[in-house]
Amino acid sequence: MKRILETLQRIRPLDQQLLAQTQDRLDNKTKPLGSLGRLEEFACRLVAITGQEQPDLSRKAIFTFAADHGVTEEGISLYPREVTAQMVLNFLRGGAGVNVLARHAGAEVRVVDVGVDHDFEDYPGLIHRKIARGSRNFCNGPAMTADEMVAAVSVGIDLAEQCKIEDIGLVGTGEMGIGNTTPSSAIIAAIGQLEVEQVTHRGTGIADEALQRKISVIKRGLALHKPAPSKPLDILATLGGLEIAAITGLIIGCAAERIPVVIDGFISTAGALIAAELHPQVREYLFAAHQSAEVGHRCMLERIGLRPILDLDLRLGEGTGAALAIPLVEAGAKILAEMATFDQAGVTGH
Amino acid sequence: MKRILETLQRIRPLDQQLLAQTQDRLDNKTKPLGSLGRLEEFACRLVAITGQEQPDLSRKAIFTFAADHGVTEEGISLYPREVTAQMVLNFLRGGAGVNVLARHAGAEVRVVDVGVDHDFEDYPGLIHRKIARGSRNFCNGPAMTADEMVAAVSVGIDLAEQCKIEDIGLVGTGEMGIGNTTPSSAIIAAIGQLEVEQVTHRGTGIADEALQRKISVIKRGLALHKPAPSKPLDILATLGGLEIAAITGLIIGCAAERIPVVIDGFISTAGALIAAELHPQVREYLFAAHQSAEVGHRCMLERIGLRPILDLDLRLGEGTGAALAIPLVEAGAKILAEMATFDQAGVTGH
Repeated sequence: MKRILETLQRIRPLDQQLLAQTQDRLDNKTKPLGSLGRLEEFACRLVAITGQEQPDLSRKAIFTFAADHGVTEEGISLYPREVTAQMVLNFLRGGAGVNVLARHAGAEVRVVDVGVDHDFEDYPGLIHRKIARGSRNFCNGPAMTADEMVAAVSVGIDLAEQCKIEDIGLVGTGEMGIGNTTPSSAIIAAIGQLEVEQVTHRGTGIADEALQRKISVIKRGLALHKPAPSKPLDILATLGGLEIAAITGLIIGCAAERIPVVIDGFISTAGALIAAELHPQVREYLFAAHQSAEVGHRCMLERIGLRPILDLDLRLGEGTGAALAIPLVEAGAKILAEMATFDQAGVTGH
Repeated sequence: MKRILETLQRIRPLDQQLLAQTQDRLDNKTKPLGSLGRLEEFACRLVAITGQEQPDLSRKAIFTFAADHGVTEEGISLYPREVTAQMVLNFLRGGAGVNVLARHAGAEVRVVDVGVDHDFEDYPGLIHRKIARGSRNFCNGPAMTADEMVAAVSVGIDLAEQCKIEDIGLVGTGEMGIGNTTPSSAIIAAIGQLEVEQVTHRGTGIADEALQRKISVIKRGLALHKPAPSKPLDILATLGGLEIAAITGLIIGCAAERIPVVIDGFISTAGALIAAELHPQVREYLFAAHQSAEVGHRCMLERIGLRPILDLDLRLGEGTGAALAIPLVEAGAKILAEMATFDQAGVTGH
């Protein structure tokens, strides 16, 4: 727990002067004031997050954290539990959605086993940090012990610190875990004190009956643990998942190391939500890749205070949304670095 | 005019069987059904447009058409007319927004002078197709003669045919022309029979008084020409601009040649709107890059029947929005080409 608290203490608010100076630089570029819209906001924030006048985003990595979930025994997913491990192997062979889209974006995929119910051999690109063979069914007790939760968060912090050493300029989040929309809905219901029906959706595509079961499972979890909204780490341990905890850790670690993070969809945003509840400045380091088709996602983003970049009806996870949004965030940095000013171009200014 | 009609006659509806077959292929990829949202739609349409099982988008070009506008003498823009020529030189030196973002997307920028009030020397990347030194003030008479309009549309058709020869797999539109939001607003007002106030905005950033003047200028143009909504080419000639006409030509040319087109913002969509009114199938070949901050843009997209890909508060034009959206359209093709199927990956399917 000390590690988490120390990391949180290192997170600083963004330098307002750097934000303003960067906007001034953009205002001298050959374009009407503000006409590049959100790209200008991205540019300003990238400079203020990194403290670099010209943020170097040449190295980019997407972390896809994988874990299993005890709550799958309640029959809340369309896919069997073994698909988590099968998909990890698919990631490692480069054939999954996140691999294709990360290659397209010029980003590396790093797969992290924090809790898959399978023993993987060594593969290039696989990071072995298994805490347990999945979380437990939160209908019967806490999903994780406090120690497991802290260990999983620490995995994320470790990886953020490693990114700093490797000069990775932009990080994306992603995940794989059959059943993990269920803990994600439970987390936003608990933190936002929202009706379960309002934040629970069909995940990978379950039918009406399974959706009702999923809602009732989440209600049982909330009734059992009675989570206090003011205790995000308790919510994470009792209702969350190992990959969600690792994402929380990656995000607070990156904020502490001044590395911008593009968060993916519903499950990643559950991890981001815990991080944002732990520290009010975390949100300044985040870019929300997209608006997921999962209904609870909007509630999460509103609570954190983030506007999504894309809205493409995605609901795959893995880091696919992050991979698609990374080039747009990067475009902000390129505008700043490469566009001519009115003076340089000999264009009559405003 | 014969050239335009012949081109329109070559436009075919998309092959519904190819659309369905491509969706089947996507449904076998390792992901929940439909979970890649709009990327799946992009993939299906790219196959049906090109007729290629694996659309080859390795070569991409954005056409930035430049022209001046007689209506600028009414004081409807914040910038002086000479900025059109200055910005063309900025494009040719690679320092403008569209250059930066097209490089980022791996697309080439081709600058086409169809009507700039300036004599350019030869530059690599500049295509000389000047029809006139700008359109005329539509408050006093037609912006273009019928011959000028046909010539400008033909420039676009020529360039589309050249793309086919060069195996350019994806085309983006763009434009530069001080004052050109005014004819664009006039076009949607005329075609959609809408109130001028509803479709007229601040362009590059004019203040309240200038906005009122702009609205009144458009009303004078509409009162003078009394355009029939059923005659899009008359609307184009009387109220449009040379670059808008060339965009119309590029779009119908690409549709005839089965090349997918990513249209940029407000002004490009004015050109697309004329094209879509000329032929009901044109829209099937188009991808709308983004929702512009210009208020009339939404009306245009709704009329054509296109949902924008991005919503980033852009209002720069040039082709910048197209450059940002091109990698997202391309992502659809990559999913189709590179993602593993359930069988290939040994993943338990649905």
